Amino acid sequence: MKPESRKQEIINAASILFTEKGYSAVTMRDLAKAMGIKAASLYNHIQSKQEILSTIIIDLAEEFTTGMNQIINSDVGSIQKLENIISLHVDVTLRNADGLGSLNSDWMHLEEENLIYFEKMRHDYEENFRNIVKKGVEKGEIKPYNIEIMVFSTLSTLRTLYLWYPNQKNIDSDILKRDMISVLLKGVV
Amino acid sequence: MKPESRKQEIINAASILFTEKGYSAVTMRDLAKAMGIKAASLYNHIQSKQEILSTIIIDLAEEFTTGMNQIINSDVGSIQKLENIISLHVDVTLRNADGLGSLNSDWMHLEEENLIYFEKMRHDYEENFRNIVKKGVEKGEIKPYNIEIMVFSTLSTLRTLYLWYPNQKNIDSDILKRDMISVLLKGVV
Repeated sequence: MKPESRKQEIINAASILFTEKGYSAVTMRDLAKAMGIKAASLYNHIQSKQEILSTIIIDLAEEFTTGMNQIINSDVGSIQKLENIISLHVDVTLRNADGLGSLNSDWMHLEEENLIYFEKMRHDYEENFRNIVKKGVEKGEIKPYNIEIMVFSTLSTLRTLYLWYPNQKNIDSDILKRDMISVLLKGVV
Repeated sequence: MKPESRKQEIINAASILFTEKGYSAVTMRDLAKAMGIKAASLYNHIQSKQEILSTIIIDLAEEFTTGMNQIINSDVGSIQKLENIISLHVDVTLRNADGLGSLNSDWMHLEEENLIYFEKMRHDYEENFRNIVKKGVEKGEIKPYNIEIMVFSTLSTLRTLYLWYPNQKNIDSDILKRDMISVLLKGVV
């Protein structure tokens, strides 16, 4: 097995453990035990628990940042931009719900430089989202409700998707994406 | 000061401390210190930290249960029922955001009997919500999207309102209620 994929295995196993017990409660020994290897072997691939956490969270935050930048710079209307943001959240949730659990519960355990970098990415993401909604309202594509209420209402649902969807055995991912876009953009009545 | 209002003061101070530090990290000594009184004085009004937690959470859960029962049994259409549910969440959030913080973060620290009672109330609440949406779809008042997606999308926003709204200095409570109803029911486009 290549070193890269072994590191990825460690990160995946850690995501699950962090989600179950919380970052602070998990030791490198727990992680080794969960993977059926010796703790010392872990250090051939990663330096510390903090390195694992920052890899999980920063990778995800960069994925959202890259996705948002593509959406912001794309030559489509505001409604299509919102649809693409919802798709982005659904796709990341489908691929890495455990990682999103770590991001949401444990981002505050990132150390100095990574914490500042993460908080900047999160701030810029929200600001870009807000600007898409604002511009949509100005152009008459989005209804003139309070901007903050629209941003909160949408993001609060997208950000908790990772907690809810893994327990929904009867909802196909295509239906999830289609109906989530309809419900969030067009409402239920 | 009457004994009832002194007990309520203790509960309010505890709600704030639990939200800041988490239930497990707060001691009766911390609570007494925050109130500027001796720890022994607290025991004239309440028996334990667990009594405070269960008072906060069970009171709130019963408030939601009573509200939901009135809505379920009222003689209005499905859309009006959903509007009334959103109003209920906004009203409780405006009155007791700190208590909702304890409910959301610390319900799992309730002890046996209260834990079972709380989980039953939460389950019944969601089931009632689901039935309102289902009946609305059957009657053609609510769009025929996936029921679980509609329930999750609405509840995930209403349940995190307590985290977001206290920081929104520029949104009047009337606007909050009016626009939240519009955004959740009719969408943003």
